[in-house]
Amino acid sequence: MEGLTKIDDLGKPRVVIVGGGFGGLELAKALAGAPVQVVLIDKQNYHAFQPLLYQVATAGLDEGDIVAPFRKILSTQENFYFRLAEVMAVNTADQVVETSIGRVRYDYLVLATGATSNYFGDAEMAKNSIAIKSVEDALELRNTVLSNFEQALQLGDREQLNSLLDFVIVGGGPTGVELAGALSELRKHVFPKDYRELDFKEMDIHLVQSGPVLLKGMSANASQRALESLQQFGVQVWLNARVKSYDGYTVTLSTGQQLITRTLIWAAGVTGAPISGLRADCLLPGNRYGVDDFNRVLGYDHIFAIGDIAAMRSPDYPEGHPMVAQPALQQGRLLGQNLSRLLAGQPLQPFRYHDKGAMATIGRNHAVADIKLFGREYHLQGFLAWVAWSIVHVVSLIGFRNRLMVLLSWTWSYFSFDKGLRYIIGKTKASLVEADVDGKAIV
Amino acid sequence: MEGLTKIDDLGKPRVVIVGGGFGGLELAKALAGAPVQVVLIDKQNYHAFQPLLYQVATAGLDEGDIVAPFRKILSTQENFYFRLAEVMAVNTADQVVETSIGRVRYDYLVLATGATSNYFGDAEMAKNSIAIKSVEDALELRNTVLSNFEQALQLGDREQLNSLLDFVIVGGGPTGVELAGALSELRKHVFPKDYRELDFKEMDIHLVQSGPVLLKGMSANASQRALESLQQFGVQVWLNARVKSYDGYTVTLSTGQQLITRTLIWAAGVTGAPISGLRADCLLPGNRYGVDDFNRVLGYDHIFAIGDIAAMRSPDYPEGHPMVAQPALQQGRLLGQNLSRLLAGQPLQPFRYHDKGAMATIGRNHAVADIKLFGREYHLQGFLAWVAWSIVHVVSLIGFRNRLMVLLSWTWSYFSFDKGLRYIIGKTKASLVEADVDGKAIV
Repeated sequence: MEGLTKIDDLGKPRVVIVGGGFGGLELAKALAGAPVQVVLIDKQNYHAFQPLLYQVATAGLDEGDIVAPFRKILSTQENFYFRLAEVMAVNTADQVVETSIGRVRYDYLVLATGATSNYFGDAEMAKNSIAIKSVEDALELRNTVLSNFEQALQLGDREQLNSLLDFVIVGGGPTGVELAGALSELRKHVFPKDYRELDFKEMDIHLVQSGPVLLKGMSANASQRALESLQQFGVQVWLNARVKSYDGYTVTLSTGQQLITRTLIWAAGVTGAPISGLRADCLLPGNRYGVDDFNRVLGYDHIFAIGDIAAMRSPDYPEGHPMVAQPALQQGRLLGQNLSRLLAGQPLQPFRYHDKGAMATIGRNHAVADIKLFGREYHLQGFLAWVAWSIVHVVSLIGFRNRLMVLLSWTWSYFSFDKGLRYIIGKTKASLVEADVDGKAIV
Repeated sequence: MEGLTKIDDLGKPRVVIVGGGFGGLELAKALAGAPVQVVLIDKQNYHAFQPLLYQVATAGLDEGDIVAPFRKILSTQENFYFRLAEVMAVNTADQVVETSIGRVRYDYLVLATGATSNYFGDAEMAKNSIAIKSVEDALELRNTVLSNFEQALQLGDREQLNSLLDFVIVGGGPTGVELAGALSELRKHVFPKDYRELDFKEMDIHLVQSGPVLLKGMSANASQRALESLQQFGVQVWLNARVKSYDGYTVTLSTGQQLITRTLIWAAGVTGAPISGLRADCLLPGNRYGVDDFNRVLGYDHIFAIGDIAAMRSPDYPEGHPMVAQPALQQGRLLGQNLSRLLAGQPLQPFRYHDKGAMATIGRNHAVADIKLFGREYHLQGFLAWVAWSIVHVVSLIGFRNRLMVLLSWTWSYFSFDKGLRYIIGKTKASLVEADVDGKAIV
C-alpha cells in the first residue's frame, strides 16, 4: 500500500546516496540533469563544512554559518529527494537499504558515509574524550571549554584548577594544529578579559603527536613552520608521544609523562564508517571499502563508494587517497558523470586524483600552505598563506549567505581581536568536578 | 578558608543581582561607576533578546545573533563580577543567597528573575506543549517544526499527517501573533520548495485567544489590523476560546471545537518566577513581589525587585506594570542611580513609567505599532509600522556584531523570500508518531 507522500516512482532508475558530506552532496548535484531519481539519505538534515568545525568549537563562528540544509541547497533540483534517516544495513539481494524510516529500494547505491573517530579500541578514551567530527561535537566542546572556566572560579585547589584550565589535544594533523592555535588565541586575546579573576599563566595547551612532525603529509617546510608558530604561541607540543591512557583526569603518555586535564580533545585519527550487509572481504584495513577506478565496490556491480569510506588503491596511493575533502569532491563529481555514461551505454572514465595541495592555519596572520598548480608546488607561509587559506575556505562554503556571514565574522574578529560567540547553549561534557568546600566559599 | 579565585572583597558594599534579563543587565550597567561590587548571578552565561526568540524558532535568525555573553557585554566594567549558577533560596537573616555553587553574601539584593510560562496548574499542558521563553525553547521549537515535516513524508494516514503539519498557538499576545505570522510565511514562501512532496494546503495554523481581541493592551486599531492581516495570511484565529485540554494530540477548546496537532505552542501567559526565602506576604497574585516606588520589596530594606518579577501597584497600574521590556529597563536604570544615592545618603527618586507604546509584526511588510511620543499616541500599520518595528529591534540589540548580523539576515531574507537556518541541531520534542507500516513503504 502506498503512503500519501511516497517517493514518486518516476520510472527512472533510482540512485540512493547514503551520506551528504563533500562526496555525497557533490554527487547529488552532479546528477542534476541525469535521467535518474536521486535519493539522499542522511541522519542530519544539513551538510556541515567540516574544515571549520574547530572555529565553531572555539567561539569564532556560529554553527549556522557553516551548515546548509540539504533541502535548501538542492531545492531547485527536480530529481532530488531527501530523507532524514539512519541507515542500518544494505540488503544486496533485494537491492534495498534498511533505514530507521523503512526500506528504500535502489538501482544504484552509493556509500558516502565518511569516517568516524578512531580510538583504536580504547573504550575509556572514547567515553572520556571529546571528538570534533560533527557540529554537535563542536558545540559540546565550546560549551565545555566555557563551562570549565566558569567552574574554575569556584576552586580552591591548584591541581583541580589546572585540570579545568589545561587542555590536551591528541593528533597533530590540521584539526589538532588549528584547534591548538585557536585556543592559544583565546588565551591571549579573549579569556583574560572575560575571566579577570583567573591567572591565565595557569592555562596550558598541550598538543600530542605520535610521529616526529606535525601536519604529516605536508611539506617539511610546512611542518617545521607550524611547529615553530605553535611554540611561539605558547602551545606545548609533544612529538613522538602517544597517549597510553586517559581516565578523564590523568593523561599518561608513552614517554611516561603525565598531564592533568578534564578536557582531552581527540583528533588523532579516523576510520571508515561502514554499513553492515556487504561482504566482509570488500572492507580493507581502516574500514574503507575497496573500490575500482570507477569507485565501484569490489565485487558489486551496482554499489559504489566515494570519499573517506572508499579506498581506491593505486601505485601512487597504495592505501587509497587521503581522507580529506578534495578526493571526495572529485570522486562525487566524476561518479555523477559516470552514472550518466553507464545509463547511456557509454564507457566509464577512470578516476584520477588532482592533488591541489594542503593548507592549515595556526592563528591570526599565521598559516602554512603547499599549493600545487600546473605541476609545480608552491610553499606559502605566514600572512600570505593565511590570506590564501581564508579565501579558499570562504569560497568553498555553500551558499552566498554563509560566505557573507563567515567573511563578516572573520573581518570583525580580525579587527576586534574578539571571538563573539562565547555562549553555553546545549550539551556540556558532564563535569567531574567534586564539590570543593573551600573553593565554594565565595561569600 | 579562601578559594584561589574568591571574589575579591573590595571593602565596598556588594550588590547581588539575580537574573540578567533586561532589568538585571541594565542595572549592572547603571552601577558601572558606583562605589559597589556588582555580582550578577544567572543560570545562563548570556543575555537573550527575548522579543526575537520567535524568529529563532522559525529559522529566520541564528541564536548567536540575539544572545550576548554577560562577560563580553561588561568586560570593561571593573566592578562587575559574573557567576554562572542557579539560585535556590535567599537567607535574609544572614544576608546570603544560596546557589548551586555555594553561598553568596550580599549587602543589597536585587531580584530580577523575570517570568516563566503560566500553565494555570495544568501539568499535562506543561508536559505536552512547547513554550518560547528561552533560547533552548526556541531551538527546540525550530527542530520540532522541521522534524515534523521530515516525518510527515513517511505517513500514509491523513489524520496522522495533519497532526504533524498543523500547529496550534495558544495566546494572542505579541509572541503568539508574531509566531503565527512567521509560520504562515514559511508555509507560503519556504516549505513548499523544501518539501515538494507535501501538499501545504494540509498545513493549518491555529491561533487561540481567550479574549475577544488579539494584542490586548494595544489600540483597538492595532488589534483589528493584526486580526485582518493574520486572516489574510490564512491563519485560523479562534477568539473567545480557551484550551480546555491537550493530551499531546487532541486539543479541546472551551467552544467544544477539537483540533488535532502534535505541536501546541504555549504563549498564553506568564507568571513571576520567585525565589524561596522571602516572607509569603510580599508575593502578590501573579507571583510578583510587591515593591514600593523605589522597587524595594515590601517589608525589606536591602532587597529590591525589578522587571517582570516586581509589581509596583499604583492608580495607573493597579496590578503593576506590563510584563515587557520597557518597565524592566527603566526600573533597572533608576535603581542603579538610587543605589548610588542611597550610599551617598541622598534621597531616592520614585519610579515613573514612561510608556513608549507597543508594536508587533505580523509578517513581511505588515506590522502594527502604537507609538507614544511627547504625550501623543500615533497608530502605525502596514509597511511603515514594519519598518519602525525593524529599526527599533535592531537598535535594541546588544552589541555592534549582533545588530549587523540581524540587519544582514533580515535584508537577505527580505529579498530572497527565504529563511536560511532550517537545520535540526539539538533537542527535538519527543515525537509520538507510531510506526506507520503503510507510510513506511517508501520502497
